[in-house]
Amino acid sequence: MSKKFQVVGIGNSIVDVLAHCEDAFLTDNGIDKGIMQLIDTARASELYGKMGPAMEISGGSAANTIAGLAAMGASTAYVGKVKADQLGDIFAHDIQAQGAVYEVPRAPADATDETGRCMVLVTPDAERSMNTYLGVSEHLGPEDIDTGMMADADWIYLEGYRFDGEESHAAFAKAIKACKDAGGKVSLTLSDPFCVERHRGAFRAMIRDNVDLLFCNEHEMAAMYEMPTLTACLNAAASEVDIVACTIGENGAMIIRDGKTEHAPATQATVVDVTGAGDMFAAGFLHGLVNGKDTLTCGRMGCVAAGEIISHIGARPEADLKELFRAEGL
Amino acid sequence: MSKKFQVVGIGNSIVDVLAHCEDAFLTDNGIDKGIMQLIDTARASELYGKMGPAMEISGGSAANTIAGLAAMGASTAYVGKVKADQLGDIFAHDIQAQGAVYEVPRAPADATDETGRCMVLVTPDAERSMNTYLGVSEHLGPEDIDTGMMADADWIYLEGYRFDGEESHAAFAKAIKACKDAGGKVSLTLSDPFCVERHRGAFRAMIRDNVDLLFCNEHEMAAMYEMPTLTACLNAAASEVDIVACTIGENGAMIIRDGKTEHAPATQATVVDVTGAGDMFAAGFLHGLVNGKDTLTCGRMGCVAAGEIISHIGARPEADLKELFRAEGL
Repeated sequence: MSKKFQVVGIGNSIVDVLAHCEDAFLTDNGIDKGIMQLIDTARASELYGKMGPAMEISGGSAANTIAGLAAMGASTAYVGKVKADQLGDIFAHDIQAQGAVYEVPRAPADATDETGRCMVLVTPDAERSMNTYLGVSEHLGPEDIDTGMMADADWIYLEGYRFDGEESHAAFAKAIKACKDAGGKVSLTLSDPFCVERHRGAFRAMIRDNVDLLFCNEHEMAAMYEMPTLTACLNAAASEVDIVACTIGENGAMIIRDGKTEHAPATQATVVDVTGAGDMFAAGFLHGLVNGKDTLTCGRMGCVAAGEIISHIGARPEADLKELFRAEGL
Repeated sequence: MSKKFQVVGIGNSIVDVLAHCEDAFLTDNGIDKGIMQLIDTARASELYGKMGPAMEISGGSAANTIAGLAAMGASTAYVGKVKADQLGDIFAHDIQAQGAVYEVPRAPADATDETGRCMVLVTPDAERSMNTYLGVSEHLGPEDIDTGMMADADWIYLEGYRFDGEESHAAFAKAIKACKDAGGKVSLTLSDPFCVERHRGAFRAMIRDNVDLLFCNEHEMAAMYEMPTLTACLNAAASEVDIVACTIGENGAMIIRDGKTEHAPATQATVVDVTGAGDMFAAGFLHGLVNGKDTLTCGRMGCVAAGEIISHIGARPEADLKELFRAEGL
């Protein structure tokens, strides 16, 4: 009997606050380009006060992936924490309106922390530099994991970023056990090289013991396996998991399974904002997988979805992804 | 001695909640296409629950105009009410970050009404249909008008929409008096044909007695003067004010001054979302005016600015408007 959910994602619930800026703004404000930095409320307030007019679009890495999957027609659910505030309303509305189940209780209106947000600064080269105030998102704990939901998932999708927080380690462990005990499979995204630095040991153990499908990029692979070449890192990862899906920027993605390496080329796109490229690659890849496609097709679907997201501002899909897959014969 | 502000705008402080939809969604939900409807909290909640994933961008008609003027380099201030809530933070940040002075005290966090928002539904033909929950924006009253600021303005810019509310009539009267007593001039936008229907008498009196520059479109002119042709309506308006600037959709704008009619052609643009076209026309026109340009040049600047805003989603400028003016030799 088929399960209720094809993919259940767990991650940080974030509303992106996106603004364009020049490179000088990054250097003047000590922002490292192209990566995600965690910031506290004081820094969030300082940066927001300095940055230009912005727009708000729901984000969060795993949430973007789940929204993408829902837009592709997959049956999905999302697990992550927001507060009962206006940004929490926005986050919940957007993921539910996309078709994903999202039922995690909100932190009450009198909680100290607010709904998380990420100030995303997009430079003229379309690179994004992220400054994340996690807020209540950080407090996702095992009590937020519905084991019935995890057991009813073909795949769970874990966001590496959410590993910043002890309660979340326990939450991940609870989700993995419930999913695996019921015959489900586990995918993980490494999220970010600095995130990997912070959690290398814990990630390694999780990958070795529980992960079936690993999403990553070149920088994350280098941080994780600390080997001189991408090939060496990928081979090390492939010895521990069934499938490694590694994005390689404008060159597309490498997929390693059963000792075989495949290459999915990137689609042509006018790059406006790379925010969410990795998230949407994972969405396309998982969509292929839960529909029984071969791994190369999965990789191509990932690249098509990533190509859509980088062609506009924001990390949630705007075009009809199903139509884009059809146009590519996928 | 030159004044501190070239233009001070007064209007509804709104955060736009923008989503794409098919025409069927409008008919299924009783939304009249292309206009602005005021809605209460229950209707706002119902509609939001039904609409698709959205993005949030600061809006408000006069606020868009002031943001546009600030982006063009004008010295501006904005007057309108938000609450001390997250959407209020967003609204205040965006207009201040654009360079406008915005100092109106916020309604306290325990106020019943929230910061106003407008659910903007963009159909495939790029038309926008607006559903506005005014929230605290409705309660702008004379106590919010800083007469010193009004006296220090070359122009004040009044948003017709804000005429929905008795306190605001008094606020407008107070602002007009302070501005005119100090030798300033008054511009008004009619905002919307249904807004004109609601306030025809009061608008007529204000136009006749106090308005120097009237912004409008064809539909608003017809609603205001109830004459069979646009020409007749424009002539009626021109007999009461110094300058009439009337947008005529994809054909650009007509400007009538001293019995002379001029035509400013629309600029070529791929139309993505018409939200804010009229607001940005007013910004470009006023920018020309405060810089001593002739009215035809003012109209052309308005059309260039409108062309920028309809080429992307949202009603706040993204491109460098000063550069666009230069490119057109303006």
